[in-house]
Amino acid sequence: MYVIAVYDVDQKRCGKMLKLCRSYLHHIQNSVFEGEITEGKLEELKVSAKKIMNEDDEDSLILFKSRNEKWLDKEIVGSEKRSVDNIL
Amino acid sequence: MYVIAVYDVDQKRCGKMLKLCRSYLHHIQNSVFEGEITEGKLEELKVSAKKIMNEDDEDSLILFKSRNEKWLDKEIVGSEKRSVDNIL
Repeated sequence: MYVIAVYDVDQKRCGKMLKLCRSYLHHIQNSVFEGEITEGKLEELKVSAKKIMNEDDEDSLILFKSRNEKWLDKEIVGSEKRSVDNIL
Repeated sequence: MYVIAVYDVDQKRCGKMLKLCRSYLHHIQNSVFEGEITEGKLEELKVSAKKIMNEDDEDSLILFKSRNEKWLDKEIVGSEKRSVDNIL
């Protein structure tokens, strides 16, 4: 399935979340990732994310799932120059 | 149509982008918005966003558009407690 993942975690845990999400999906913006992923791999990602996140600190990860990428049309307004994979 | 919007702008312009996006869509996480919007309103949002953003500073706004919300399944992992509309 096709997934868009966006996290919002305390700065202390950003590096770990970035590394985790990057190992499963493509990094397209600051805390935004997308890609094809299996149900099993997504489950792994969620379990690992929960271990990193601190819910009491209001960390969250939002997943938008679609059976097929073709149902979503992506548009980038503004700069496409930022090489997100070099942020950290 | 249904839209997910995620911006990544310099901190100096975050407040303006937040206010703009909030006036068209529902604020669901830090810099993430979603909602039903017409083609015309989305065009307005894009024009206004371009005025706020500084492309040389690598500001960007990513839009994921779907004709129908039902093609997307949203899941929140972690905290749902943060009342995003009170961040600023």
